[in-house]
Amino acid sequence: MDDSAKSDIVTAAILVIGDEILSGRTKDKNIGYIAEHCTKIGIQLREVRVVADEEADVVAAVNALRARYTYVFTTGGIGPTHDDITADCIAKAFGVAIAVDPRALALLKPYYEKRGLELTPGRLRMARIPDTASLIDNSISIAPGFMIGNVITMAGVPNIMQVMLDAVTPRLKTGRKMHTVAIDLDHPEGAIAEMFGAHQKLYPEVAMGSYPTIRDNRPCTQLVLRSIEQNKLDEAAATLRAKLASMGLG
Amino acid sequence: MDDSAKSDIVTAAILVIGDEILSGRTKDKNIGYIAEHCTKIGIQLREVRVVADEEADVVAAVNALRARYTYVFTTGGIGPTHDDITADCIAKAFGVAIAVDPRALALLKPYYEKRGLELTPGRLRMARIPDTASLIDNSISIAPGFMIGNVITMAGVPNIMQVMLDAVTPRLKTGRKMHTVAIDLDHPEGAIAEMFGAHQKLYPEVAMGSYPTIRDNRPCTQLVLRSIEQNKLDEAAATLRAKLASMGLG
Repeated sequence: MDDSAKSDIVTAAILVIGDEILSGRTKDKNIGYIAEHCTKIGIQLREVRVVADEEADVVAAVNALRARYTYVFTTGGIGPTHDDITADCIAKAFGVAIAVDPRALALLKPYYEKRGLELTPGRLRMARIPDTASLIDNSISIAPGFMIGNVITMAGVPNIMQVMLDAVTPRLKTGRKMHTVAIDLDHPEGAIAEMFGAHQKLYPEVAMGSYPTIRDNRPCTQLVLRSIEQNKLDEAAATLRAKLASMGLG
Repeated sequence: MDDSAKSDIVTAAILVIGDEILSGRTKDKNIGYIAEHCTKIGIQLREVRVVADEEADVVAAVNALRARYTYVFTTGGIGPTHDDITADCIAKAFGVAIAVDPRALALLKPYYEKRGLELTPGRLRMARIPDTASLIDNSISIAPGFMIGNVITMAGVPNIMQVMLDAVTPRLKTGRKMHTVAIDLDHPEGAIAEMFGAHQKLYPEVAMGSYPTIRDNRPCTQLVLRSIEQNKLDEAAATLRAKLASMGLG
């Protein structure tokens, strides 16, 4: 890949923050959703980490990931209770102050007033935003996410995370889209391994993966070809189909 | 926590290896399953990473995680095709050789012979096992997983991963079990944030988390208390229930 193409590549990582995922009590639904969203808009997700609600672990992961990728999406830990430590961790990772943000307060105050609810210290916690961060709209329950530098901090509740992701997407730089071709085979992986490995060598710009599945009790295979170069992808897929046909597997 | 208790703590991380998870094409089902299994048997899952099928990334993640936790479970990348690089990466991480293992070959050979299938170089790849590793039975499709040092390498296909996890579990050291109490509230988190934070401070041996949910269109909360100390957990749960009742929220 030459340098001009490389500069079109936008990368990302996801950092899931939450004891409840690590205990198995809550099954994560955000990783797959964000992964698909990134692929769709032209961002390449390169890594995911899940860490506990421990300040040192969160800060270390944020700093490792934000140095390495164009963007870091975090989910979880921005609610009103003591175990919601994400905003403070992000401030610490960036070395900035954190306090109740007037913009966030202006969103929360009328929301609670309208519902006859007190703006308790807990609820005020949700207005704590690291200095220099921009807010991310939450059209469901108002308490905003935020973006600071290349880190995007969102709620853990899936439907709230999803509206935040939609809200922040227009602000993100996106790169060349990854195109995909999938070929389903009624044969096990072992039948095509050598040919497929040799085919990969012919097309270094196309990432080729083989995924075993079971269909009707028989081992089957899905071959997936991915590339940002549509022409190369089409060529690699056409020549692969021809090889499969000549082997009687097409 | 005193030192005698600490020595009873067994920790783990999961390393998911696979481009298909990062592209969003395949939704991971192994993290939640292994997380629940660990909790059940007395192993505390502390971290999860998902990395691409890139040797340098896999080796770096294996070495970072195996230095930090009692066990590392890896999933994915042990099939017959060129994109299955996990076994080689593990060998590299441990600095040991890797070759076709006679024990693994003795499993695969009759399996393929019986089915009239050739033991192609691709299928032979699945018998490549790092030196000094022990094998992990695969009662579904025979090609084994393996354990080397504190790293347990399993398939990515969920039902095969699950039989491997069952097969390796008797070999694992387990620690004190985490006990859990969950309390469901028909009120939003904001209503209990201060009390709950103060309650956490009274019971440092009990990890307390608050998780917002929506039930019948209304914001609700689940409070989760977790501890390896059953007595402390029972006491913390009883006093919490009393406080909730006195606030009219119980």
